Amino acid sequence: VDLPALDRASEFPIYRQLHQALATQITSTKIPAGSKLPSVRELARTLSVSPITVVQAYDALIADGLAHASLGRGTFVGGPVFGLSPEGTRADPSESPQLAPGPNTEASQPQVSVHLRAPRISAMQSLLKPARKAEVISLAAGTPDPALFPTKTVGRLWSRMIATEDPSFLQYGTPQGDHHLRSWIAGRCRSMGINADPGQILVTSGSQQAIDLVARTFLGPGDHVLVESPTFVTALDIFEERGARLAGIPMDNSGAQPDAAASLVDRYRPRLLYTIPTAHNPTGISLADDRRRSLVALARSRNLLILEDDICSEFTYEGGPPKAIKTYDTSGHVIFVMSFSKTVIPGLRVGCVVADGPILGRLIEAKSLSDRFTSPLIQRTLWRYLTSHHYERDLEAARDTYRRRRDSILRVLADVMPQGVTWTRPAAGFNLWIRLPDGISATEAFEEGLREGVSCIPGDLCLAHDPPPSGLRVSFADNHEDVTAEGIKRLARAITRLLSSGRRARPESEFVTTI
Amino acid sequence: VDLPALDRASEFPIYRQLHQALATQITSTKIPAGSKLPSVRELARTLSVSPITVVQAYDALIADGLAHASLGRGTFVGGPVFGLSPEGTRADPSESPQLAPGPNTEASQPQVSVHLRAPRISAMQSLLKPARKAEVISLAAGTPDPALFPTKTVGRLWSRMIATEDPSFLQYGTPQGDHHLRSWIAGRCRSMGINADPGQILVTSGSQQAIDLVARTFLGPGDHVLVESPTFVTALDIFEERGARLAGIPMDNSGAQPDAAASLVDRYRPRLLYTIPTAHNPTGISLADDRRRSLVALARSRNLLILEDDICSEFTYEGGPPKAIKTYDTSGHVIFVMSFSKTVIPGLRVGCVVADGPILGRLIEAKSLSDRFTSPLIQRTLWRYLTSHHYERDLEAARDTYRRRRDSILRVLADVMPQGVTWTRPAAGFNLWIRLPDGISATEAFEEGLREGVSCIPGDLCLAHDPPPSGLRVSFADNHEDVTAEGIKRLARAITRLLSSGRRARPESEFVTTI
Repeated sequence: VDLPALDRASEFPIYRQLHQALATQITSTKIPAGSKLPSVRELARTLSVSPITVVQAYDALIADGLAHASLGRGTFVGGPVFGLSPEGTRADPSESPQLAPGPNTEASQPQVSVHLRAPRISAMQSLLKPARKAEVISLAAGTPDPALFPTKTVGRLWSRMIATEDPSFLQYGTPQGDHHLRSWIAGRCRSMGINADPGQILVTSGSQQAIDLVARTFLGPGDHVLVESPTFVTALDIFEERGARLAGIPMDNSGAQPDAAASLVDRYRPRLLYTIPTAHNPTGISLADDRRRSLVALARSRNLLILEDDICSEFTYEGGPPKAIKTYDTSGHVIFVMSFSKTVIPGLRVGCVVADGPILGRLIEAKSLSDRFTSPLIQRTLWRYLTSHHYERDLEAARDTYRRRRDSILRVLADVMPQGVTWTRPAAGFNLWIRLPDGISATEAFEEGLREGVSCIPGDLCLAHDPPPSGLRVSFADNHEDVTAEGIKRLARAITRLLSSGRRARPESEFVTTI
Repeated sequence: VDLPALDRASEFPIYRQLHQALATQITSTKIPAGSKLPSVRELARTLSVSPITVVQAYDALIADGLAHASLGRGTFVGGPVFGLSPEGTRADPSESPQLAPGPNTEASQPQVSVHLRAPRISAMQSLLKPARKAEVISLAAGTPDPALFPTKTVGRLWSRMIATEDPSFLQYGTPQGDHHLRSWIAGRCRSMGINADPGQILVTSGSQQAIDLVARTFLGPGDHVLVESPTFVTALDIFEERGARLAGIPMDNSGAQPDAAASLVDRYRPRLLYTIPTAHNPTGISLADDRRRSLVALARSRNLLILEDDICSEFTYEGGPPKAIKTYDTSGHVIFVMSFSKTVIPGLRVGCVVADGPILGRLIEAKSLSDRFTSPLIQRTLWRYLTSHHYERDLEAARDTYRRRRDSILRVLADVMPQGVTWTRPAAGFNLWIRLPDGISATEAFEEGLREGVSCIPGDLCLAHDPPPSGLRVSFADNHEDVTAEGIKRLARAITRLLSSGRRARPESEFVTTI
């Protein structure tokens, strides 16, 4: 394999450059069929790129039919070998780090092609593994605080329900979801200014499933998707699993820049624009109102779907939440996603999609393939909780707690962070974004933070491609103020040490992980 | 569009013939780019094929990049038009039967490509719509009887658990699932002769999600999948959604024929063989033991994955269930799927996959993309129920009831069915299969049954391609014996009437439904 010269200043993503260089060598048989490509880790190290970049390049080769991934063995040039006894072609066991020990390892292993990868999710799990020790303060979670879960109330409602409902409601349910719950959601939408009836709502197993259903239904190989840069890690993996190509919209303190979005639309002709306009993950920014209107106009004029992910706007700390993009949608181009994971309990696994007729019909079909229906038991219990007098009161109390925690983390940041470090001031949600000074990469700061005993999310994971100047996501909702304060102090020490050590970032930030 | 002459005797599936004929006309620009192809229903009627055949042919054109589906408008030759204001190209509203009425219909509708279809699920829903009236006896469900659901016990365990567990167990959970539940499943597997530890188990949101995760992970466009003919309707839609091509293994009274399977493997080099060896859906047949061993040997020698769907073997009515195919697997080629929907409660939505290390690792990744995790609340409650003294007792009682219902339906069938009609005698599960005499199509018998006030599943839906001599799936588990008996009498009258009317089936059975 001849290693290509990568042009890091080019707008053509690094992974596409690598893909093209390898594809040329494969089609010219300079790399012969059957050869094993370098391991992801090895090539990433040699080229000083992130492993995700290599995985993306290999995936593109696989999509072209120029290579295949063999489970636990690596990536090989050409199509998979069929019909051979695996014994005859068994890989060198030293190259099979994923082989599980167990009763079957003495026998042959199946050689199978793999069509699904989740490189960022895997990288995140590996990165956070050393952070699981008790002495490490986690500012990485982005989750609500379990102490605020209304478990007692939900438990009581559940018991009452199971004693009174006909058991047939625990039979196989309909893919679209419980009518009562959908009616409540429709009412909630109307109170937000979204014109929805229960027929326009699909209940999903968490809002993440909603994103996955939209991707499965409306994205195919080679389709472009615009995302905010940075954005929700898992959404990036979901879109790429469909074979989609990602392009990142730059953000400023008012959110995604609409002019940049428009020019990306004209350049890439994307099918979908994914946005988290309120309580943006990972930055905590909320998109300015006029920009919301611009995005709808763009979607309508360019025939582009907008996927609006709204899972945390209930936790807006000053005034009410901004109007959802969906409220401006008169043409059915906006698919609106909500969740009860932050507002009620993550372990219920309930979210929903709001979309107009034909689009919703297709999403219901996708749901009926994916897991057929979401537990009616949970849906009905949730509905009873939402219509009880507890819900609004519990939500209000949680909002107060999270507001206090936000105010506290902002005070601590101002006290302890060294000069040159800046951060967002979230009006809503559970996270904020720390911008690092030039010369410090997110991965470095993350690792140095770990040594100080604090974890957060290095921003590189939240990006479509190799990173521009980078940052850290810090969560403040799930820890008591004092714990967060101690975590931030540790992080400040870590960043200060990096700054004073005079170390400079490596040319390209690198993940210290196997994928 | 020139309609092709279809060779119904050919082994080349009808849908491939249609696909090829259309592809030739499109590439020769005989059908110009931008033209709308005939509606699925219209073309199906003209050619006397099932709408599923037309959908499959259109999907193949779309996969080739020769056509695209536009939401609510139809299928068009060439790629989708981008960047036009939808107003400028708005379709004739009379061609948009799917457009939902509502506040948005006066505005433009988005024109979006659709990459997911579930033609059989849609067809089944349409077919069964007229069967929803109270006076129609449903023998169509294939579900357990809600009267046997252990709702009271489960409710009690749930309340106790929520009062005692730390609320943090309702936080975001791990994709692989609750350790307690996985340990129980591993023990259950070992008692069946499957060597599994908790690390080899992934908890899913129902067994259907397990099938979907396997398809997403290990199938790509053009891959072949072998299925029993007939088989589980939804599995067919799931495999085709991945772009896979299906080939059906003929069955006899001992299940799928291994010689036929072997020659199909050599011909199509499939990646996956999907089988329901025990309590087969829809026929009720259980696969002979020597055939189970043959399939494992085939998988190992040809490097083929077997997906073994075992959701109903707990309800075996004579002796114990046969040994699972997975018990013979020493090389990790068998992926084993179980469910708690039939044995406990469908509305819990819990199933699982058992697979060896590297394969399971990839499935966990797929789970983390699909819906992240299954509700820990439900998993823990289920585990408490399974480890209580109630579970085995409840299961035993349900087994007795279902055995009585099976014995009863077999007696009634023998009493009332006209000569020429035969049926399977299920040793396990909830369904049996009625073979219709020559000259009566499944759709005819289904419709005539509806007129008599009974519904069942026409077997055409359960087939990969256009049907060979066909049958009906009849369920006996969810109705009281007397209700089933009355249903069977009605069905017998319907079939008798068809036989005596001297009507002959149309050349190809046709679904009376819109897709």
